[in-house]
Amino acid sequence: MAQASTNMRLKLPITCFILEIILIILFGVLVQYNHETDAKEWYNETQSGHSNYENDFYYRYPSFQDVHVMIFIGFGFLMTFLQRYGFSSVGFNFLIAAFSLQWATLMQGFFHGMHGGKIHIGVESMINADFCTGSVLISFGAVLGKTSPVQLLIMAIYRKHLKAKDAGGSMTIHTFGAYFGLVVTRILYRPNLDKSKDRNSSVYHSDLFAMIGTLYLWMFWPSFNSAVTAHGDAQHRTAMNTYYSLAACTLSTYAMSALTAHDGKLDMVHIQNAALAGGVAAGTAGEMMLTPFGSMVVGFLAGIISVLGFKYLSPILEKKLKIQDTCGVHNLHGMPGILGAIVGAVTASVATVEIYGGGMEAVFPDVADGTIDASFQGVRQAIALAVTLGIALLGGLIVGFILKLPVFGAPPDTVCFEDSIYWEVPGEEPGHEDQLTAVRMEECDKLNG
Amino acid sequence: MAQASTNMRLKLPITCFILEIILIILFGVLVQYNHETDAKEWYNETQSGHSNYENDFYYRYPSFQDVHVMIFIGFGFLMTFLQRYGFSSVGFNFLIAAFSLQWATLMQGFFHGMHGGKIHIGVESMINADFCTGSVLISFGAVLGKTSPVQLLIMAIYRKHLKAKDAGGSMTIHTFGAYFGLVVTRILYRPNLDKSKDRNSSVYHSDLFAMIGTLYLWMFWPSFNSAVTAHGDAQHRTAMNTYYSLAACTLSTYAMSALTAHDGKLDMVHIQNAALAGGVAAGTAGEMMLTPFGSMVVGFLAGIISVLGFKYLSPILEKKLKIQDTCGVHNLHGMPGILGAIVGAVTASVATVEIYGGGMEAVFPDVADGTIDASFQGVRQAIALAVTLGIALLGGLIVGFILKLPVFGAPPDTVCFEDSIYWEVPGEEPGHEDQLTAVRMEECDKLNG
Amino acid sequence: MAQASTNMRLKLPITCFILEIILIILFGVLVQYNHETDAKEWYNETQSGHSNYENDFYYRYPSFQDVHVMIFIGFGFLMTFLQRYGFSSVGFNFLIAAFSLQWATLMQGFFHGMHGGKIHIGVESMINADFCTGSVLISFGAVLGKTSPVQLLIMAIYRKHLKAKDAGGSMTIHTFGAYFGLVVTRILYRPNLDKSKDRNSSVYHSDLFAMIGTLYLWMFWPSFNSAVTAHGDAQHRTAMNTYYSLAACTLSTYAMSALTAHDGKLDMVHIQNAALAGGVAAGTAGEMMLTPFGSMVVGFLAGIISVLGFKYLSPILEKKLKIQDTCGVHNLHGMPGILGAIVGAVTASVATVEIYGGGMEAVFPDVADGTIDASFQGVRQAIALAVTLGIALLGGLIVGFILKLPVFGAPPDTVCFEDSIYWEVPGEEPGHEDQLTAVRMEECDKLNG
Repeated sequence: MAQASTNMRLKLPITCFILEIILIILFGVLVQYNHETDAKEWYNETQSGHSNYENDFYYRYPSFQDVHVMIFIGFGFLMTFLQRYGFSSVGFNFLIAAFSLQWATLMQGFFHGMHGGKIHIGVESMINADFCTGSVLISFGAVLGKTSPVQLLIMAIYRKHLKAKDAGGSMTIHTFGAYFGLVVTRILYRPNLDKSKDRNSSVYHSDLFAMIGTLYLWMFWPSFNSAVTAHGDAQHRTAMNTYYSLAACTLSTYAMSALTAHDGKLDMVHIQNAALAGGVAAGTAGEMMLTPFGSMVVGFLAGIISVLGFKYLSPILEKKLKIQDTCGVHNLHGMPGILGAIVGAVTASVATVEIYGGGMEAVFPDVADGTIDASFQGVRQAIALAVTLGIALLGGLIVGFILKLPVFGAPPDTVCFEDSIYWEVPGEEPGHEDQLTAVRMEECDKLNG
Repeated sequence: MAQASTNMRLKLPITCFILEIILIILFGVLVQYNHETDAKEWYNETQSGHSNYENDFYYRYPSFQDVHVMIFIGFGFLMTFLQRYGFSSVGFNFLIAAFSLQWATLMQGFFHGMHGGKIHIGVESMINADFCTGSVLISFGAVLGKTSPVQLLIMAIYRKHLKAKDAGGSMTIHTFGAYFGLVVTRILYRPNLDKSKDRNSSVYHSDLFAMIGTLYLWMFWPSFNSAVTAHGDAQHRTAMNTYYSLAACTLSTYAMSALTAHDGKLDMVHIQNAALAGGVAAGTAGEMMLTPFGSMVVGFLAGIISVLGFKYLSPILEKKLKIQDTCGVHNLHGMPGILGAIVGAVTASVATVEIYGGGMEAVFPDVADGTIDASFQGVRQAIALAVTLGIALLGGLIVGFILKLPVFGAPPDTVCFEDSIYWEVPGEEPGHEDQLTAVRMEECDKLNG
Repeated sequence: MAQASTNMRLKLPITCFILEIILIILFGVLVQYNHETDAKEWYNETQSGHSNYENDFYYRYPSFQDVHVMIFIGFGFLMTFLQRYGFSSVGFNFLIAAFSLQWATLMQGFFHGMHGGKIHIGVESMINADFCTGSVLISFGAVLGKTSPVQLLIMAIYRKHLKAKDAGGSMTIHTFGAYFGLVVTRILYRPNLDKSKDRNSSVYHSDLFAMIGTLYLWMFWPSFNSAVTAHGDAQHRTAMNTYYSLAACTLSTYAMSALTAHDGKLDMVHIQNAALAGGVAAGTAGEMMLTPFGSMVVGFLAGIISVLGFKYLSPILEKKLKIQDTCGVHNLHGMPGILGAIVGAVTASVATVEIYGGGMEAVFPDVADGTIDASFQGVRQAIALAVTLGIALLGGLIVGFILKLPVFGAPPDTVCFEDSIYWEVPGEEPGHEDQLTAVRMEECDKLNG
């Protein structure tokens, strides 16, 4: 495709400034404190019997902070596995997340209903904004190394909304983010990407940096899945189900990695990614009475599917379907997301009052009040999955073609997975200029010409 | 010793699959939600006057998450100081922790009492599972670099249980884990380990990665020691005592490091490890009315003992007693653990109603209700220490001999502290194949033959 | 200046031991548990109707832990960007923070009022101690690479105190720390520092380590600014305002970096630092009814000012005013701190009962009870800024001249920004001695005579 200059001198500042100024104006016009963050309103609530200790801040904020760490450290460092793309992985992750969380605040407000023309926000808005951001970052994983920061910002504007029982977002976050990203990367197919292939791999230290990302995602996934569930048993149970799902997933991941990899050796790509699939797969049903046993079965299967995907499916997708999925988001978020959606549908369909008692209302309000029966709740969940997939594919198609316009400064096929095209990059080693870097920067400078 | 192939193609998958399937079955048969995670039971509690805000999730989960970070990031990265063992340090830490927390959930259930044949679990179970995991990881530190992942998984099965006032586990976690690991490493003594000695050291970046581990352990140790103490003042006080103990310990560590090390220069090994000894030593008495002053004295001494151990005792243990303690767990967990146990016994024995008031019951219930007097509580604590040591030594002996069986794929003495024996390892530097790595991998491939 | 030996064999141990022993004695004489950490007192409170769940531990400790991470990981790793100063950045940060938090506990006690000659402490003391430590570490950033650990400890003793509405410390922490540090580095001006200039820069991996610091500061800044605000809406609102301020700041930082840097490429120094200015600038007004819109405007401006500072002002300060500001604390903490103070004064001066309702009391008690009107509160804030600046400049002057005494083992101009002067440093690469290191260590050994 015809390339515009990759020089970001004007493109990036203009995009950032315009987007941020629009955001600020929209916030000025539309956004207000909600009753828990507004000095006057909350004071009035305390006068009518509420204690300051009942402010939702104390019951959501610790979860929020864990989610926040997953978004910025987890996703950011997970993608640093590439040998020469650490600055961009962490840095672009940072940029698009910072944009996306503001944008998502507005989008949620539009869709979740406004109050007298205003969007009311508090800690739950912050969590949901981070969730939407997570979905964007998953899509980012599919196109990692092959897009300019301006393309990423534009990609982050696209948003969808969907109501379903899906607290941890197996469908709305993971499945959506993955398939959206896969379609975008398909549209942006690069026939000569193998010219950048020696940079499309890790080095020793980059794999260790990536493990920081993996572990934070793994540790805090229980907080992620439980962050917006109902207070009390639901939040408690979701965190615990996710904990055991991840633990089981880790064992099946190591087993499958040794079984399938060269010479019985473990493959860092599997450990960094597939061990997390148990969190994805518990995203819908984690809130339900899945039991620790059920969670472990789900996690166990998710690990197996994910490693098999990395080993056998990804190469096929690339060769046959021309889907160049840098981070393997199909294996970590796509298939485990669908698994999670199915598990959610099945678990919902077998919910009984015997099991849930009066707690049915918090989990399945429509079943509790008799509007529908449990099996129909299951059908609803399945429909939500189908709709999610449909919107993801359609949205990916539209956004992909927009991003294909040759004005955003995407790198050429020969200089993908390379920081120095967008960043001032120092040498590799102390005390002497890095030759390789010098050569590359010269090459990049030409492009920026 | 006669070596089996280090190839993990079948050994690791078989071990992981069997263990995980056993776990899943046992969870299916034995484990249930407790009253705070079960939808029906918790709903019934809320009907009888409890608020959702009283669910223990909100009073334990933040501490749990801190402990979780210590287990996976703290221990995992602390051990990355070795130049060529970063993948294994973080990766095997991850694997055995994921296994151990499931196994520990069951073991605790057996020992803490079952309810109608079932184990009831919630956030406190998760914390205790992570605690047991910590103990396993301490033992791992003693044999780091010299064991196969299969050996580590088997080591993690061994578990003990012991009742004593020991909220932060000076005895049950640190002393136990350290001496158990030391006995195991003694049994697995490698006479020709010096053939791997050039890999048994750090490089610049590996020391920085290790500092990530150190700092997370240091920062979150107050949460560790207070995670399962009684609500209210006890939890608050424990966190604070630990905070000041660690601060004092850090100053004495730096002082002793400069004083004892070559040329007055600071030694990273001391900083990474001894500065944490204050947390270990406050593990038993942190919950008691130790006072910030007392905590600082304890931390101050712990730092001194620990640095002296690294400098003078470890070489003796290695030469005279053939104890090859890779991470120096004796200095960080062994001696400071014993110090902590003694401090706990002394502090308990001087407890008076004048100091504790009605709060005596939460800390020393048997003293509060007059069953025993405080000095006897002190004796009890001392006995618990002796029993801990006895079980650790005996257990280490048994497990050590099991691990010596030449079927688990341990590395030969010449290829210890080396990732490429169990991992696909990329080069060191971007853009060119790493020669050293290539040579090593060839060597390892032969072993895996 | 005449140099004393940089050998720390005796200087560092003596300083550490003396300081720590003084601290322990003062704690023994002066410090007591407060009513929430004392077993007897808290028990009595529970008897008079308080629940254990009302212990402030549960409403402050999660914020405390986030602040703690910012201090040790955030500041520590942010400064690892230097290629050969990672051990010192993290390690000296650790040492002076561990000292400072003990010292600050005492200082706060003296200034905040004692109870019957005793200082009563709990989790809020710990947060405030960490806050003071933050201020010290900001000053450390100005002299990074050019001071011995003994100088740093002495610098940490100096403390000021000031009452103003400044929950997140735009003035008391950031402005103070920055200008204090700038004056100190001015006094310690090194005319031949350019002889160390090839070490005064980053390498690829050191920039990634620094990003760990940046991101933790960024993520947890909402906790920092809200940690000691009033419970309920104030804490909730402060966290949220900071969150949006930081997000807006990040976009303006990226924009300005691409706009001003060489060839339109992003500069890691800007991303690592300026993106945080939004947190600094929201430190005073974050607690007030600034609105998300106002917060975003403030963050947006802070990012712009900060990048411009790095690009244009820092070189002028160095050349014209001889202020060698290693980390650019003037751009991250100095100017954004002043901006934050001004925003605070303005926001306070326009506070009305219409906006705050009964919540006025928690934010501006003197305005609420009619002692002063809002505009005078604004004047008060402005005066506090002026006083902060005055004390910072005076204090920096005094401390700078003390530190200039040639007895503390500061490095010579030729060996600044170099770990091996104070640390045992291993090689860069596995498996072979690092030549560069060997040469440097020899050089350093000479200095240590």
